[in-house]
Amino acid sequence: MMRRLIACLLLLSVAPIFVYPQSAPDPRSIDGFSTQRTLDERQLEEKFRAIPSPASAREHLRQLTMEPHIAGTKEDYATAIYVRDQFKSFGLAAELKEYEVWLNYPKTLPVLELITNRRQKLSVTEAAVPGDPTSTSPKITPLFNGYSATGDVTAPVVYANYGLPNDYEALKNVGVDVKGKIVIVRYGNSFRGVKAKVAQDQGAVGCIIYSDPADDGYMQGDVYPKGPWRPVASGQRGSVQYLFDYPGDPLTPGRPAIPGVPRLKPEDATDLTRIPVQPISYDVARSIIQPLAGPVRPRGFQGGLPFAYHVGGTEAVKLHLKTDMDYKQRPIWNVVARIPGDSEKDHLVILGNHRDAWVFGAVDPNSGTATMLEVAKGFGELLKQGWKPNRTLVLCSWDAEEYGLIGSTEWVEENAAELKANAVAYLNLDAAVSGPHFGASSVPSLWKLIRDVTKDVKDPKTGKSVYQQWQDHNREGRSETDDSAGEARIGSLGSGSDYTPFLQHLGVPSTDMGFNGDYGVYHSAYDSFYWMDHFGDPGFLYHVAAAQIWGTMALRLADADGLPFDYADYASQIREFFNETVRLSRRRNLAGSFDEKAMMAAIDDFAKESGRVERARQDAVRNGDTAKLKTINGTLIDVERQFIDARGLRGRVWYKHQIYAPGIYTGYAAQPLTDFRQALDDRNTSNAKESLERIVDALRRATTTLKQASD
Amino acid sequence: MMRRLIACLLLLSVAPIFVYPQSAPDPRSIDGFSTQRTLDERQLEEKFRAIPSPASAREHLRQLTMEPHIAGTKEDYATAIYVRDQFKSFGLAAELKEYEVWLNYPKTLPVLELITNRRQKLSVTEAAVPGDPTSTSPKITPLFNGYSATGDVTAPVVYANYGLPNDYEALKNVGVDVKGKIVIVRYGNSFRGVKAKVAQDQGAVGCIIYSDPADDGYMQGDVYPKGPWRPVASGQRGSVQYLFDYPGDPLTPGRPAIPGVPRLKPEDATDLTRIPVQPISYDVARSIIQPLAGPVRPRGFQGGLPFAYHVGGTEAVKLHLKTDMDYKQRPIWNVVARIPGDSEKDHLVILGNHRDAWVFGAVDPNSGTATMLEVAKGFGELLKQGWKPNRTLVLCSWDAEEYGLIGSTEWVEENAAELKANAVAYLNLDAAVSGPHFGASSVPSLWKLIRDVTKDVKDPKTGKSVYQQWQDHNREGRSETDDSAGEARIGSLGSGSDYTPFLQHLGVPSTDMGFNGDYGVYHSAYDSFYWMDHFGDPGFLYHVAAAQIWGTMALRLADADGLPFDYADYASQIREFFNETVRLSRRRNLAGSFDEKAMMAAIDDFAKESGRVERARQDAVRNGDTAKLKTINGTLIDVERQFIDARGLRGRVWYKHQIYAPGIYTGYAAQPLTDFRQALDDRNTSNAKESLERIVDALRRATTTLKQASD
Repeated sequence: MMRRLIACLLLLSVAPIFVYPQSAPDPRSIDGFSTQRTLDERQLEEKFRAIPSPASAREHLRQLTMEPHIAGTKEDYATAIYVRDQFKSFGLAAELKEYEVWLNYPKTLPVLELITNRRQKLSVTEAAVPGDPTSTSPKITPLFNGYSATGDVTAPVVYANYGLPNDYEALKNVGVDVKGKIVIVRYGNSFRGVKAKVAQDQGAVGCIIYSDPADDGYMQGDVYPKGPWRPVASGQRGSVQYLFDYPGDPLTPGRPAIPGVPRLKPEDATDLTRIPVQPISYDVARSIIQPLAGPVRPRGFQGGLPFAYHVGGTEAVKLHLKTDMDYKQRPIWNVVARIPGDSEKDHLVILGNHRDAWVFGAVDPNSGTATMLEVAKGFGELLKQGWKPNRTLVLCSWDAEEYGLIGSTEWVEENAAELKANAVAYLNLDAAVSGPHFGASSVPSLWKLIRDVTKDVKDPKTGKSVYQQWQDHNREGRSETDDSAGEARIGSLGSGSDYTPFLQHLGVPSTDMGFNGDYGVYHSAYDSFYWMDHFGDPGFLYHVAAAQIWGTMALRLADADGLPFDYADYASQIREFFNETVRLSRRRNLAGSFDEKAMMAAIDDFAKESGRVERARQDAVRNGDTAKLKTINGTLIDVERQFIDARGLRGRVWYKHQIYAPGIYTGYAAQPLTDFRQALDDRNTSNAKESLERIVDALRRATTTLKQASD
Repeated sequence: MMRRLIACLLLLSVAPIFVYPQSAPDPRSIDGFSTQRTLDERQLEEKFRAIPSPASAREHLRQLTMEPHIAGTKEDYATAIYVRDQFKSFGLAAELKEYEVWLNYPKTLPVLELITNRRQKLSVTEAAVPGDPTSTSPKITPLFNGYSATGDVTAPVVYANYGLPNDYEALKNVGVDVKGKIVIVRYGNSFRGVKAKVAQDQGAVGCIIYSDPADDGYMQGDVYPKGPWRPVASGQRGSVQYLFDYPGDPLTPGRPAIPGVPRLKPEDATDLTRIPVQPISYDVARSIIQPLAGPVRPRGFQGGLPFAYHVGGTEAVKLHLKTDMDYKQRPIWNVVARIPGDSEKDHLVILGNHRDAWVFGAVDPNSGTATMLEVAKGFGELLKQGWKPNRTLVLCSWDAEEYGLIGSTEWVEENAAELKANAVAYLNLDAAVSGPHFGASSVPSLWKLIRDVTKDVKDPKTGKSVYQQWQDHNREGRSETDDSAGEARIGSLGSGSDYTPFLQHLGVPSTDMGFNGDYGVYHSAYDSFYWMDHFGDPGFLYHVAAAQIWGTMALRLADADGLPFDYADYASQIREFFNETVRLSRRRNLAGSFDEKAMMAAIDDFAKESGRVERARQDAVRNGDTAKLKTINGTLIDVERQFIDARGLRGRVWYKHQIYAPGIYTGYAAQPLTDFRQALDDRNTSNAKESLERIVDALRRATTTLKQASD
């Protein structure tokens, strides 16, 4: 995945926590199924959940992670064939779907030299690790950033902390300008593409990104291979595409990268940086940062290397950085399998996971791929026993997610019309397993489904339900001063994985989930089978649990009489977002600049109508009122689509969702009510007014849509 | 000082912030003086403030810090003579006051050996530092803790984080018991005496305390001599007396350590630890912690040394610790100067600062001593010009503060009757200057005085008033989400300096102040004249500002017609404390266990009566109603005394104040409404009820007292 879910959840801890009355789940009913049909569904689900096995998940992962398989390579192609053939062996119709997209590999090893009173060549590779057999592979890609520019620069170095706008503010306050300099920034607090863009905007001629041991190394715990955390000689690869501008193939924004679609000139693609960007390990970072002169670091800049950081900027310490990128149109391969539905064949429930990895990708993403194969095997078994889903199930193995959600974006762009009309939901799984702690992000309409399903799956370690364990683990992280008991928290969808085109471009209700843990080898050569076998999921029981949860969610969405969407939760979530943003606007003396009342009224109406539809749905399910359910289901599928505004967000039209999108600087994290919030950050009152009007319009459209079902 | 003010202020950041209307100070009036008398007072103050000079402050500091001067030594005696003679040279009557108290020095160098597969002797001294001439002195005391026990122990080591109860809880949760082991704990988050007691209570046989670079070393900034922060080979000396039980001479609790007063047997003194406790530097700590096996550190345990901490507890890493303490009755010397008052001769305004230091003590405490000498010089000048204060001024240079506030406590215990009857206020200054940032802690009745005076003194660096700069600096530390504008914040008095016997034993209104900065040499050999000259206060202008503030406060208290005490502020502060504690009790489901209404009523009455007295005072000052003012002043002196309950706090009867005391585990930090809060922490509802009743009684007594003035 492009991002780490754990980091995202931390960033989202500002999201409100909702308190629900706790009640024991009623064993007789599953939301959306009548009492009678619940019995069949329970049997079916139990059959399904008995099929995924640790041994076969482990074997899939071993097969998938034997070689580095970056998007567009023959090793990547081999994994596509493996997945397709596995799908077929389970009895599913599956095919490869190819796109031609703009990708870079390093043509030669990047050059990094430290120039002080002497010249010293610095490492851009990761060391072999005793015990981990794949760590010695000669095929391991050097440390590089996807979509870095080619460049050859020599300049003084400035340490710019996390490389975000406020960091450059702090540098200015101590009199340091980065114009014409090379910045070294640490990973964390946002997506690396943001760091690259901000560095370029600030006038830096190059950007080095490293993993500081305070965030991602020994200060988190024992380092690999003694423990699961990042060792000194490990770096984090990853894309520096301006994902917040648009994802997918940089040369075909909004359109599929298929033959016949015209390409932008690369220099016209607005989601690409123009400066060389290079990731390094923290021992290499130490040799750059330790000799820096200049002012001592401002507050918040100190990391975990054992000396007082200075910000540099003087001639005393310079770097020579040379990157030589091989940019080309390259083929990538999605694998798509379909299980045709019965009564609602046109309606699609889509499961997706990407398959490409920066190196071996045991956690990211192939724990998800192994999980998907277990789910497919389960569906195949059910099919053999005569089951047929009401709605069509689609399983997608995406390619080139790491470069910028490319496989999913191109597919969504190609099938936009069908998806807009018929997609029920998109269920994403990226790094499915890096430990035992369940976490999820989702549109609020699917919160109840996630919670319900996790109540029906056992946590392998504790024997409690996954839900119970998830809630307990959430609680551990809270202080005594936090009064909130209640439900396990579910984050907001920002960006960084393949739900983005579905939700934020088309308005398809989406979820993202995984089991997280002490994952200190993200985007390194040590995200390997050996690591998974020893730290992430020894025994592979969490792969099985992930398959059980994912598959059960899909089954319920595919078979429910009345789709289990709850828009009352969505309404309360939007209310919370808005209240929080209003508070912010008050602190900034911007409160009078927009129509607060209109928004509150729109939320109220939406909430009221949501409640009405929910009651109608419950009644229709209970009474088996098929005609009514057809209307209601059609409505429920349409509601999220109303949050799409065809005009797109301000300055980045590909993003069209009015509630959820990544912020321009927040990176992976969602910035809910995006443009409205951005306008407040920019202190632009006319933008704030207009953005809120668009949100109000979207809410009104959604309310009107809901009315169709309750009328 | 026994504590660092900066740490204390951080701990106190939970204290509520009060918002006052901001208005330009009225140049015509000083609180407590009639319009007419204000003119004279302004002239007098301006005369006074012109006298302190950087050059003479610098010279005093140089003289005072030439040699290490631990309490009870001949070098300490020499500083007493110096201070007395300076007082005399300014025309003040001054005398030495000697007590015989129980003190320890290391008889021989402590022995510390690391036992792994080999035996390695570890350093218990601090290295010489290039440039700092006193750092090479052979007289520098080795690293040791005041009131450590003599002991010789060999045992496995456990790393116990900050050594507080919740840290041992966390160790238990990972299966590590410290019984029979030596714990190594880091400084910070509480007073070191708490760490010693908790270690002993947990069954540890020895306790090592070190300064972690995350809290007090390179992670804070450049280390000495490049910068002001603690270098790798520096450790923090200090007392491990159980200050929270009682301060002063351990063998004469509650009574003065003078001839004829019987002494406890040392083994009966309840404020002494029975295990050896030893401070070390962080490079020595590194050699102990790095090899530790056992579980990886629990959350919050990681410090700034460059590896993942483990908690140890296995036979693989042991320590041999041998301390040989020379305990004796030793003489200490306070220096006390008096400037007799005129119309209210009996009433005392007391200024105090300690003089003894663990080594050279340039910041702690002799920046305060140099400041006191500048104040004394100023008073001497005024006297020569014919001035005589209304009330008697007393200047006290305390000894043996470092061991446990001994000089001040013995003097207070000796003069308890006079002080109870006549003390107007006690104004403490300990480490007066370590940088440019003003900070203060105080009883709320004196908040206005502190704010008023700092508005009349210029900040040397910015030219703004000290008040303005203080407020601006407070603001910098606040996030955008903090709505509070308003007055600069003043902390609560906990313990750790000489105000404790005055306020918490007798109920004398007290303040503590200082200019703080990047002070990374606390209780080390590098707290030297060279450090001050290069980092703390190059130019010595903040010494002058400190003298101006302190002296002006004393002058106003000595000369005011109507004493500038505001008990309305005290009432709101108590209300805040109570509201906060009630919220805590709700979270713990203990809210019904005490009489909330009675307390709210008592606060309301106290607030109402405070307002009435304040109006009466203002009227009487305006009208020059001398008779009325005599009554009002007598009342204002008596109010704080009503917060004293002769029965003392639960289990530690020396502490008698019902609002302010250090908590048992909070160390330096105040735990307001002490026993009530402690009962809630213990979840003891009958204690909570009874403790709150005592507080309510105290408030009622204070209200009754106030009524005498408004009747």
